Amino acid sequence: MTLPRDYSGQTCALARSMEIVGERWTLLIVRDAFYGVRRFGEFAGHLSVPRAVLTDRLATLTAAGVLDRRPDTGRREFYALTGKGVALWPAVRALTSWGDLFYPGPGGGPRRVFRHVGDEAPVGEDGRCSGCGEAVPVADLLVTPGPGLAAPGPDADPVSRALARPHRLLTPLLPSTVSTTRKAEQR
Amino acid sequence: MTLPRDYSGQTCALARSMEIVGERWTLLIVRDAFYGVRRFGEFAGHLSVPRAVLTDRLATLTAAGVLDRRPDTGRREFYALTGKGVALWPAVRALTSWGDLFYPGPGGGPRRVFRHVGDEAPVGEDGRCSGCGEAVPVADLLVTPGPGLAAPGPDADPVSRALARPHRLLTPLLPSTVSTTRKAEQR
Repeated sequence: MTLPRDYSGQTCALARSMEIVGERWTLLIVRDAFYGVRRFGEFAGHLSVPRAVLTDRLATLTAAGVLDRRPDTGRREFYALTGKGVALWPAVRALTSWGDLFYPGPGGGPRRVFRHVGDEAPVGEDGRCSGCGEAVPVADLLVTPGPGLAAPGPDADPVSRALARPHRLLTPLLPSTVSTTRKAEQR
Repeated sequence: MTLPRDYSGQTCALARSMEIVGERWTLLIVRDAFYGVRRFGEFAGHLSVPRAVLTDRLATLTAAGVLDRRPDTGRREFYALTGKGVALWPAVRALTSWGDLFYPGPGGGPRRVFRHVGDEAPVGEDGRCSGCGEAVPVADLLVTPGPGLAAPGPDADPVSRALARPHRLLTPLLPSTVSTTRKAEQR
């Protein structure tokens, strides 16, 4: 892609963002990272993204400083959002809300409701808690199932099943000792 | 693109959004529509997008109900954001702010500053006016040049030149009687 002509104009800010997060799957990967998805197999299982594409997107996000690759148990690695990555939350939130509003799930209403970890009141799209009025930092958000979410079936992937319960953003969703493929399926 | 497996999950809301606005150029076109760009030639001149791609993206956005195609003077047509399109503002704003923050323009700071049309005070990323504290509707926002914006050169396109001055969002940026190609260049 050639960038728009006016590199120095406003075009550039959005164009640069889209250069990084505008590729297919990329923003879904970032969204999953907010939910605490950390390992290659977890992303692959949840998103059903081809593994070569996932490898490419994780490399792009790591090179851009959105994700950080860190050593895990044994010889494994995991991915975590950097500060630059966490700064994408308003964009992820806004695009998710728009999708929920105009393409609602089977039950109607949002598929996920974000709540303040302190009082569990829903947090509005302006990022403020509807209970206490505070501007809630991303790390103090709970992702909880909403009315538009269909319950995951028995053969759902481990990430979908874990997200059927409230979970604090940016904390690991699945235990590091459980393989996300076979072992999790056998529980 | 096949959508992620869990259609009924949260994945779906963001995936659906990205199905529509995740294609290259699409969100830049939507952004320009917020700035009052309305005609094919104006989008083409400002974004330097290949005309076949622009035709495709405008058709996608019109079919999705994000843009509405309306009769203009003579046999021409123009495009305007629908309510569904205007609802994309938080996403456009968030991605633009992220780009400005991590890929600042040559002068540093944001390329565009959004101000409240009432008191011209800057409007924060939470959509509230820093002067009066009000939540500012999109139609009451002014887009104004910011410190990170390089002044458009003499051969800049008409849209870039018009955006060197404050302009109210969702109002036409260029007069309908001026051809955006030749006549505007000759002024």
